[in-house]
Amino acid sequence: MQNRHAVADVITKLGERFGERATTVRAIRERHGQDESYHAPHPPDAVVFAHSTDEVCAIVELCAAHGTPIIPYGVGTSLEGNIAAVHGGICIDLSQMNRVLEINREDMDCRVQPGVTRKQLNRELHDSGLFFPIDPGADATLGGMASTRGSGTMAVRYGTMRENVLGLEVVLADGRVIRTARRARKSAAGYDLTRLFVGAEGTLGVITEVSVRLYPVPEAISSAVCPFPTLQSAIDTVILTIQSGIPVARIEILDATMMDAVNRYSKLDYPLQPTLFFEFHGSPAAVAEQAAHVGEIARDQGAGDFVWAVRPEERTRLWHARDNTLYSAMALRPGSRALITDVCVPISRLAECMLATRDDIDRSKLTVCIVGHVGDGNFHLLILVDPEDAAEISRAKTLHDRMVMRALALEGTCTGEHGIGTGKIAFLQAELGDAVAVMRQIKRALDPYDLMNPGKIFAGTSEPLPLPII
Amino acid sequence: MQNRHAVADVITKLGERFGERATTVRAIRERHGQDESYHAPHPPDAVVFAHSTDEVCAIVELCAAHGTPIIPYGVGTSLEGNIAAVHGGICIDLSQMNRVLEINREDMDCRVQPGVTRKQLNRELHDSGLFFPIDPGADATLGGMASTRGSGTMAVRYGTMRENVLGLEVVLADGRVIRTARRARKSAAGYDLTRLFVGAEGTLGVITEVSVRLYPVPEAISSAVCPFPTLQSAIDTVILTIQSGIPVARIEILDATMMDAVNRYSKLDYPLQPTLFFEFHGSPAAVAEQAAHVGEIARDQGAGDFVWAVRPEERTRLWHARDNTLYSAMALRPGSRALITDVCVPISRLAECMLATRDDIDRSKLTVCIVGHVGDGNFHLLILVDPEDAAEISRAKTLHDRMVMRALALEGTCTGEHGIGTGKIAFLQAELGDAVAVMRQIKRALDPYDLMNPGKIFAGTSEPLPLPII
Repeated sequence: MQNRHAVADVITKLGERFGERATTVRAIRERHGQDESYHAPHPPDAVVFAHSTDEVCAIVELCAAHGTPIIPYGVGTSLEGNIAAVHGGICIDLSQMNRVLEINREDMDCRVQPGVTRKQLNRELHDSGLFFPIDPGADATLGGMASTRGSGTMAVRYGTMRENVLGLEVVLADGRVIRTARRARKSAAGYDLTRLFVGAEGTLGVITEVSVRLYPVPEAISSAVCPFPTLQSAIDTVILTIQSGIPVARIEILDATMMDAVNRYSKLDYPLQPTLFFEFHGSPAAVAEQAAHVGEIARDQGAGDFVWAVRPEERTRLWHARDNTLYSAMALRPGSRALITDVCVPISRLAECMLATRDDIDRSKLTVCIVGHVGDGNFHLLILVDPEDAAEISRAKTLHDRMVMRALALEGTCTGEHGIGTGKIAFLQAELGDAVAVMRQIKRALDPYDLMNPGKIFAGTSEPLPLPII
Repeated sequence: MQNRHAVADVITKLGERFGERATTVRAIRERHGQDESYHAPHPPDAVVFAHSTDEVCAIVELCAAHGTPIIPYGVGTSLEGNIAAVHGGICIDLSQMNRVLEINREDMDCRVQPGVTRKQLNRELHDSGLFFPIDPGADATLGGMASTRGSGTMAVRYGTMRENVLGLEVVLADGRVIRTARRARKSAAGYDLTRLFVGAEGTLGVITEVSVRLYPVPEAISSAVCPFPTLQSAIDTVILTIQSGIPVARIEILDATMMDAVNRYSKLDYPLQPTLFFEFHGSPAAVAEQAAHVGEIARDQGAGDFVWAVRPEERTRLWHARDNTLYSAMALRPGSRALITDVCVPISRLAECMLATRDDIDRSKLTVCIVGHVGDGNFHLLILVDPEDAAEISRAKTLHDRMVMRALALEGTCTGEHGIGTGKIAFLQAELGDAVAVMRQIKRALDPYDLMNPGKIFAGTSEPLPLPII
């Protein structure tokens, strides 16, 4: 696609400025061309480890002058090929921009560099009485989580990155640096640029600072696991719980296959039934009341016994089982690779979507686990495939595509939290139709030469303006 | 600005299609050129009462073909001249598009036409066990509230329109109709167009449908009023309350002048001190616990006695006093007009911002009340001016401008919930600098001829592309 001489020229100039922090070493390039998804790797032409916004600006300006693509990179935990260098170019690795810049206890917010990971942030918040609740599973960077509009297990209570990013610093495709918002909790001042860059997957600019909301560490936390006779009864329990106004902090669903995998992997003996994992946050009295209320609802739906975990080490063990669903699934079939995907539907359509998908799974003869953030109507398939078996991969893709189209038919979205990347471009079009043309108009307005993470969200580079002669 | 012949042509064609629903009657035009703000009226050239998305499309296409500005209008309760026809044009009155299209109880969401007002929606939700919490005071339309990113007293618990709009149908400047999102609670599918149109004040398109989140009606509600020795002690109570994780549903602050006005207007005898109005939502036990906990915090800050209201009629009376702050203030000085404005700062800077503003007020010799959504750091000035007294209006504007610039200096925003309209264009630039240029790029990409509510958010119409010859 691009001019090889121009790229070589960019790499030479990066070397002059950044020394060993700009590298074309094959192993490093390969690591930066592959995220945790099943999509094919696409290594960039070079990787630069940036240390400051000024450096990011310099890299972007250099690339822009040469028409070279730019791919922002955190720690590579994305799941739809979001960081693949499909048109080559320069990967800006932001993981060394990992300082927490400011914590405001009274305002319950903080400002961090984009390479700070969520676990690091929570470690640095340890003595503040505050925590950052967004937990996508992987120890992703805040910049990456903002870019993919990540969420995870606590979104049902605390929202997603959409609700929790207060403001961003962004380097645009032409090297301009903007701040999208001040530090106020709310604002009606002009277009919501913060929300435009949250979820843009680096296609509109490079995020160089993230400000997020924080929350008080709950006085009491209580967790529970409970099996249900059917998927429908588990989901009805969730609907009734939320309709009752119970501010549950997490509700996760694992299907029977997933529970089997969890049992084997973590040496547990949970019943092989659809199972809900709960967590409650609040004062001791509030947590007890919430738990009792949910227990009643669940019993009315024919649930089995709740297994409670209140002490921190018990809770850690319980959630450890949930957090290890991916490894548990993969251990069901050693040597397999997981095709991981997510959709999100209105919760009233969730049982229908999951049950029809389970029928498809049974017919497919594939090994597939289902796990979901059921309070949001968001669930994942973990499809285990032999990477050498083309027929099996083809069956897996058919299963995947049918599930996504089913979610759309049920008024849902093709991705609740992984983003479009390279993997769901066609589904975005199926989901939003003419609205995608509006997204492209915005992309073209802010990145007319399609230099920022090209080939993501939208297909191809057929539309960019011709580069000016330099 | 515009071609008068073109406007006359548009009006003729509107008359042919819409009959009496397209009008140039002076009284109607004047009512549509003035919102509830102090800004000068700017009547449109004509008003059309639309009944469907198709009709809105037809009006937009007709206006676009003639280069005639389009101003979307709900019920005119905006506060920054957001609906003034500063360049003339056609006002599309959407108040008759007022049907609730769909209520999904299990998913706790609904879809409405843009002219549905919040009180109407809550009436129609009456038997559902659900409610829509966003309450900006006025009985605004959902379309208008979305357009100005409105919020109000319950935002501290339930968020603003930003957090609560699930999706929109929008007619763009060229007549295309898009839906910005499906009905899933969360999505990572492409750019967040929903959030782009929420708060765009009609400058990017006309909202023709709004989908919003709903919430379960709380099992128990309890309200209280409590005076404080100082503004700082009241604000510290709020900070400690929120830091304690108490999910308070409303916390409003009224300063001593405001309390004096409320007492006189509603024949009450609250102490003339800075006062907090609280509301708690939850189970009876949770509400009691929250109230007790806040009571302890307040006592530690030297608060006076809480006056509690638990029965519905008591709560109504209590909040009636809060809701009537504008009329109470104006009654302090009959014949006056209120210059109403809002800013929002990090809550840790709120006391400083309000106290310095109070000093300014004292020096100004103006009659001014302060009332605020203190949990968000958002507060309002109600400045009473004699509309015939130019010197007084000038002093009021100085006071206003100093407060806004002070809020910006304290890391805040020039408007928490009223929007930019015509009144805060210069402050938006001061607040966000180069980011405003990015907003203009988006505006130009989606509305190249500057036809959608021109003169709002951005100044002037110097930049639009020349119209193609028709």
